[in-house]
Amino acid sequence: MIRIALSQLEVIPGRPDLNTATMMALIEKARSQQAHIIIFPEMAIPGYLLGDTWEQRAYLRECEEFGRQVIAASTGLSVIFGNVGVDWEKRGNDGRVRKYNALFTAQNGRLCSTDKSPYPFCIKTLHPNYREFDDTRHFYSLRKLAQDMGKSIGELLQPINITIDGKLFKIGGILCEDGWSDDYSFDPLAALHAKGPLDLVVNISSSPFTLGKNNKRNRVFSKQARVTGVPLAYVNNVGLQNNGKTVYTFDGSSSLYDAQGNIVAQCPSFQPDLKIVDIGSNANASTAVIIPETQEIGSIYQALTYGVNNFMQQIGMKKVVIGVSGGIDSAVNAALFTCAVGPENILLANMPSIYNSQTTKGLSEKLASNLGCQYTIIPIQETVNHTVSQITTSPIIDLKTGQESKLAVSSFMTENIQARDRSGRILAGLSAAFGGGFTCNANKTELTVGYSTLYGDQAGFIAAIGDLWKHQVYALGQYLNAHIFQSEVIPQGIFDIVPSAELSSEQAVDEGKGDPLIYPYHDYLFRSFMEWWNRATPEDILTWYAADELDKQLGCKIGLTKQIFATPEDFIRDLERWWKLYTGMGVAKRIQAPPILAISRRAYGFDHREAQNPPYFTSAYRKLKSKLLSGR
Amino acid sequence: MIRIALSQLEVIPGRPDLNTATMMALIEKARSQQAHIIIFPEMAIPGYLLGDTWEQRAYLRECEEFGRQVIAASTGLSVIFGNVGVDWEKRGNDGRVRKYNALFTAQNGRLCSTDKSPYPFCIKTLHPNYREFDDTRHFYSLRKLAQDMGKSIGELLQPINITIDGKLFKIGGILCEDGWSDDYSFDPLAALHAKGPLDLVVNISSSPFTLGKNNKRNRVFSKQARVTGVPLAYVNNVGLQNNGKTVYTFDGSSSLYDAQGNIVAQCPSFQPDLKIVDIGSNANASTAVIIPETQEIGSIYQALTYGVNNFMQQIGMKKVVIGVSGGIDSAVNAALFTCAVGPENILLANMPSIYNSQTTKGLSEKLASNLGCQYTIIPIQETVNHTVSQITTSPIIDLKTGQESKLAVSSFMTENIQARDRSGRILAGLSAAFGGGFTCNANKTELTVGYSTLYGDQAGFIAAIGDLWKHQVYALGQYLNAHIFQSEVIPQGIFDIVPSAELSSEQAVDEGKGDPLIYPYHDYLFRSFMEWWNRATPEDILTWYAADELDKQLGCKIGLTKQIFATPEDFIRDLERWWKLYTGMGVAKRIQAPPILAISRRAYGFDHREAQNPPYFTSAYRKLKSKLLSGR
Repeated sequence: MIRIALSQLEVIPGRPDLNTATMMALIEKARSQQAHIIIFPEMAIPGYLLGDTWEQRAYLRECEEFGRQVIAASTGLSVIFGNVGVDWEKRGNDGRVRKYNALFTAQNGRLCSTDKSPYPFCIKTLHPNYREFDDTRHFYSLRKLAQDMGKSIGELLQPINITIDGKLFKIGGILCEDGWSDDYSFDPLAALHAKGPLDLVVNISSSPFTLGKNNKRNRVFSKQARVTGVPLAYVNNVGLQNNGKTVYTFDGSSSLYDAQGNIVAQCPSFQPDLKIVDIGSNANASTAVIIPETQEIGSIYQALTYGVNNFMQQIGMKKVVIGVSGGIDSAVNAALFTCAVGPENILLANMPSIYNSQTTKGLSEKLASNLGCQYTIIPIQETVNHTVSQITTSPIIDLKTGQESKLAVSSFMTENIQARDRSGRILAGLSAAFGGGFTCNANKTELTVGYSTLYGDQAGFIAAIGDLWKHQVYALGQYLNAHIFQSEVIPQGIFDIVPSAELSSEQAVDEGKGDPLIYPYHDYLFRSFMEWWNRATPEDILTWYAADELDKQLGCKIGLTKQIFATPEDFIRDLERWWKLYTGMGVAKRIQAPPILAISRRAYGFDHREAQNPPYFTSAYRKLKSKLLSGR
Repeated sequence: MIRIALSQLEVIPGRPDLNTATMMALIEKARSQQAHIIIFPEMAIPGYLLGDTWEQRAYLRECEEFGRQVIAASTGLSVIFGNVGVDWEKRGNDGRVRKYNALFTAQNGRLCSTDKSPYPFCIKTLHPNYREFDDTRHFYSLRKLAQDMGKSIGELLQPINITIDGKLFKIGGILCEDGWSDDYSFDPLAALHAKGPLDLVVNISSSPFTLGKNNKRNRVFSKQARVTGVPLAYVNNVGLQNNGKTVYTFDGSSSLYDAQGNIVAQCPSFQPDLKIVDIGSNANASTAVIIPETQEIGSIYQALTYGVNNFMQQIGMKKVVIGVSGGIDSAVNAALFTCAVGPENILLANMPSIYNSQTTKGLSEKLASNLGCQYTIIPIQETVNHTVSQITTSPIIDLKTGQESKLAVSSFMTENIQARDRSGRILAGLSAAFGGGFTCNANKTELTVGYSTLYGDQAGFIAAIGDLWKHQVYALGQYLNAHIFQSEVIPQGIFDIVPSAELSSEQAVDEGKGDPLIYPYHDYLFRSFMEWWNRATPEDILTWYAADELDKQLGCKIGLTKQIFATPEDFIRDLERWWKLYTGMGVAKRIQAPPILAISRRAYGFDHREAQNPPYFTSAYRKLKSKLLSGR
């Protein structure tokens, strides 16, 4: 019988001192419970998403020093942990000191080295370089090292040998992506298993939460254990890490899979945990734990509240001002932040102009009252009028000739002036006075096409629902009422009114006028541009439209496209309008957008790299368009 | 005699149609001049910095199609060009279709293939993954391909064989980084030369302008040609490409190095060019061109005006509003934009509060008059007062108890309210009415520590001098007066006054009060944090301070540190203050900063990836600090 401690650490990125202190306490606890092995996540000491902090040699020395402390603490048990492995003598391809993303194994104060590896630690073989990952920028992979040494990767991949009760115990140690080798020409796990019978596979990870990922992870790792007949310990961290623009929660979900592929232990999501679990020599005695497939909207709620709470802690912010308009986005933000940090820390501000209806003003106040947040009303019309007047009456002077001219302000400009007056003028000042920040209430649909005003409603310290499509925002609102508050804290009227910015008489909610976006269609269209692994483009969309299979491809209601667009002209006009915004002004605005809390397979920011380039329609698209428009 | 056409193309990123059209015309022109070979830059068809557009299969098909058109046009001469090479049957490590950053050679309508390569094109071997580069995210390197195939890289690297006048002509074709192999374990050039005598080496590049890079490039490539005795054609594009937050100019500087390492032809910087040059069979007859080492401030001026002009063209913006305060940053921006787009397209706006001196108001008007820009004055005091009044008098209501409270606004908050009133309220509205955007006048020193207000003076459509330290801004101002305008367009008073934000009575310029930054020291301190290849940290700084060698290490005036800081306490307080801002609030602000025009070896944005993590001081730093403070 071997006793394993799965240590689902809350890793604080950039704080090796705090992480090490927590690890020391957990090692002590595991030892007191007679664990033979304690396993910590990938990059447990330094944190994983650090940007270019990896270029600070002082930071590397610091992580090495804390690594030595952890190694020294391994008396009486084996400690497996992730840290940066530095080779001060060699260079990476950037010319800086060479760094490895490494798995260390220590026993009785010493590192357990493998015979044929040039280093006393295991090196990550496969480096993810998609989505938000940036391993290749900072670390040298085992692939490269093998190539440099003129060896096969398999030669360098060796099991870790530790001794438990006098007996040899062989561990296949891998890091995160190494366990997901489908798209690589090399499978580190297979290579390790080929080295003779393993007693245990250990996968240490730092794997951000992504909607639906856990279900897949369980299928993949369960199969790995079952097929090889070797138990697998998966240890992932919890906490919050970010790449600047994109903020990731880590749900942990560390698990032990037995030799039959059953999950025999799993740490709870989004909570630090030390799970002690015994594996028998044949692992037959273990009892499977039933892990229900996670429900989409429930896990979104969990990730967002965890993320908001942790993010505010990390930046040292306690209080929040939220502009509430009476619409669904601000209402869901208000309810979410109330769950995350408590109503006493929240001030809801309604900022009416002459275009805001009694309906939405009433709904805002009702929302504040239901949530128990503080509330204030600060009108903007006077300043908006003053701004328009200053711009239109101030003389524009040609100093050479002395000639003066005046500028005009269009109704569209006035809409933006209102939005900026609310955020840039009121909310920014109000939140400072309140002792905190203000939220950006934008959703993913708006962010996709820049349907928000820069320095206006796009501003804020975080876009908590910036990775949710509009229909997900509604669903989250309903979930909050039904399951979290179990009462109608978000008034039904907020769900019922037409979505509208209320910035002009063209957007009067009481007359059913609102946004130009038809969410049941555009949510799905934009998702195909943005979230699909193979991004859809107007060429793909128009091809499907012409083949009458667009709704099916997009996953929206069958028949919807035909219902919305009477003619190909209408369809094409709409398609081009939004594609231009998505790849044009939308990019410009996202460059200056706040950090976004990621939940999907693809969030804006570092996970979706983009250049401010001219919108483009391919030749094939233009050909098909002209065919459709000419009716041929 | 072989006639080569160096085609220094202006590549428009994301516009394969336009790039191909230009290439077709240039091929025609080269053919009419009896060129044997025409050489286009790396990624000439698609552009290089495209973000995740590489994930659009329609875009890949489009680039392939335009590639076929270029190949078809190669009648009577050889065409070498960069494009994406797609293998639709294979996958990259992200699971998407596999893409190569490739060099194509076509002759008489067909691709010239090399014997042993699995593809009819050359594949980039070394992928830069530092600074702004992201090759590994999108492309599969020859290194990986060789490893997958179980071959050495050298086996796959083969010269290109073309026929000129019935004779075999062997070309070593490489891409950009392949010519800079110092930090790699493999040298593609050496491998190619080892394959037997080459007649020519071709390096196609897409290499952004970086201060001082051309001098280094000339030394490196000249040596490569001299040592091997083989002429080298280096072809780089001009134009502007961006990674969203960071905007790069491409200066081209395409050159032909003869077998002795002399530059025998060079295209002008920042201009499209087709340079026809003959190389003799022994290349002895060529005449060296003298390339003067570029002057730092002159090339900064050139890169910035080229960048501003191109960026505005690319986003379709013609007119600009610049807030002018009477300080150096806004004055240099005003002069720079005047050079780039002409005074008739510029409106300078002075926005005084009660804290702005007659001195700076006068200097602003003088500046506008000198430059010939349009001018307006829009005061902000009334709105600032109104905002403060709204925030402090609007009741904050607890709806449950009916209790009301009020908030207070500090003088620091009022400073920020002023800054946001100018940008978020006035400049944003004014520039829309003027028909353009407004600039962000922040410099690199300010951006480093977030010494600017979010949605205030940090806002704008581009930060043109955002990659210049304060002392470089002054130098650029002097250069503009002395060399470009040859008159004092930037009034001397602007150079003479103390740098100040004029946001409170504590910053009164006429009393010599200004910024808390001591630029002659902090510029150099911040540069060591940010620009140095091995980033300096407080640990390094304090170590040098203790050893009395800080000024020397930083490169600032010897004796300066001692002069500024009377005691170690003073020194440490200052150091910690700015480090905390640099790694804390500064990061938060930069996430929402405008695009920055890059000129240095390290610009903020995609070139300097950062996470919003807690500021950190290493154990070694804390130890040294306590030693210094206790005087032990």
